[in-house]
Amino acid sequence: MIYRLFDMFSRVKVIGRGRAGGAIHARLAERGLAGDTGADLVLLCVPDLAIAEVSRRIAPGPWIAHISGATRLAALEGHERRFGLHPLQTLIRSRGPEQLDGAWGAVTAENDAARERAYWLAGCLGLRPFDIRDDARVAYHAGAAMASSFLVTLYRAAARLLESAGAPAEALLPLMRRTIDNGFELTGPIARGDWATVDAHLAAIHRTAPDLEALYRALAQATQP
Amino acid sequence: MIYRLFDMFSRVKVIGRGRAGGAIHARLAERGLAGDTGADLVLLCVPDLAIAEVSRRIAPGPWIAHISGATRLAALEGHERRFGLHPLQTLIRSRGPEQLDGAWGAVTAENDAARERAYWLAGCLGLRPFDIRDDARVAYHAGAAMASSFLVTLYRAAARLLESAGAPAEALLPLMRRTIDNGFELTGPIARGDWATVDAHLAAIHRTAPDLEALYRALAQATQP
Repeated sequence: MIYRLFDMFSRVKVIGRGRAGGAIHARLAERGLAGDTGADLVLLCVPDLAIAEVSRRIAPGPWIAHISGATRLAALEGHERRFGLHPLQTLIRSRGPEQLDGAWGAVTAENDAARERAYWLAGCLGLRPFDIRDDARVAYHAGAAMASSFLVTLYRAAARLLESAGAPAEALLPLMRRTIDNGFELTGPIARGDWATVDAHLAAIHRTAPDLEALYRALAQATQP
Repeated sequence: MIYRLFDMFSRVKVIGRGRAGGAIHARLAERGLAGDTGADLVLLCVPDLAIAEVSRRIAPGPWIAHISGATRLAALEGHERRFGLHPLQTLIRSRGPEQLDGAWGAVTAENDAARERAYWLAGCLGLRPFDIRDDARVAYHAGAAMASSFLVTLYRAAARLLESAGAPAEALLPLMRRTIDNGFELTGPIARGDWATVDAHLAAIHRTAPDLEALYRALAQATQP
């Protein structure tokens, strides 16, 4: 693999073994790159709010990086050789390092040397890297959270409505997968301009799951062309 | 295939060639079942609001069915041998009958004879049938629309935020697919109780895409455990 022709790091110390740190450490171990002593890269996989504090306790010398989506490089204050690499993936404990494969990775780097190393690390991990400006990380991460966390919310709301009607929630899966595979081409009542059906939906939601009414309205509002 | 051992219908007349009618007619033609004369089933694939009128123009005799998600059987007034079969799938013109394969189909039937025929037709079309009560169709269809149309809305909103940050929108695809494959296990800031990040998201959205602020709030509100 081309990214191993010239190793940019020979040993990576991973701090933190949460969902992301666990998968990343396992992948680096597979590559023979994980190790705690003599590391030339320290990779912070700790909660966002702990990054600055943990970073301060690391003596300058090795490269340092964090994997947070929304955190700016300023959290790595005191270190000049630094970057951010956020795996754009939902990582769970019941999966291993293979869950990094094919996901994208958001790189924030202040110079070419940092960017080169961040891209190399992304390749090692199985991620496809792209650049994100330091001051744009929060907007980027808001989009990522919408796409994943709120997809869960959307499914749960839709599943409740199906189950209230006696239908199996799993019937939604081929529908949702195909919506993605179709490049998010809009179909259904709003695409047809069929507002009578939208009104009927709202009346049914009002009866069966009134707490979902505001959510349906906000989504319908945002769906209009 | 077991559903062909005893044909319940020998000829199906499909009225309407929209996204759904086109795919359904093509599938029935593949099965040698499509035909306009001497049909023992008339399948209405017309807009919801046209179903009652088109139904009234059909002389009683053959079975009659509609494929609408939200429409009740009363729209087929004057016909006693009737049922509803809604393909729970987003159907587009650039795909053919294969897009029905593996999707589920919502059956509303008033007796065993109708249910048996609806299930048989579902099998012919490639759909996995399940029952839905006549008075629950609208709630069921509201869930279906949330899962598909609002998934488009969610992606578009997330893509805008990524693009505002200079990130490629396609980077969301592995994330969204994995969210589904993970059984909609919630990860991200809300799952971690990280409200500081949620607040930072809202501030970034307020700056970069203020029209998405209400949507983000409604979704975050609905995501809380």
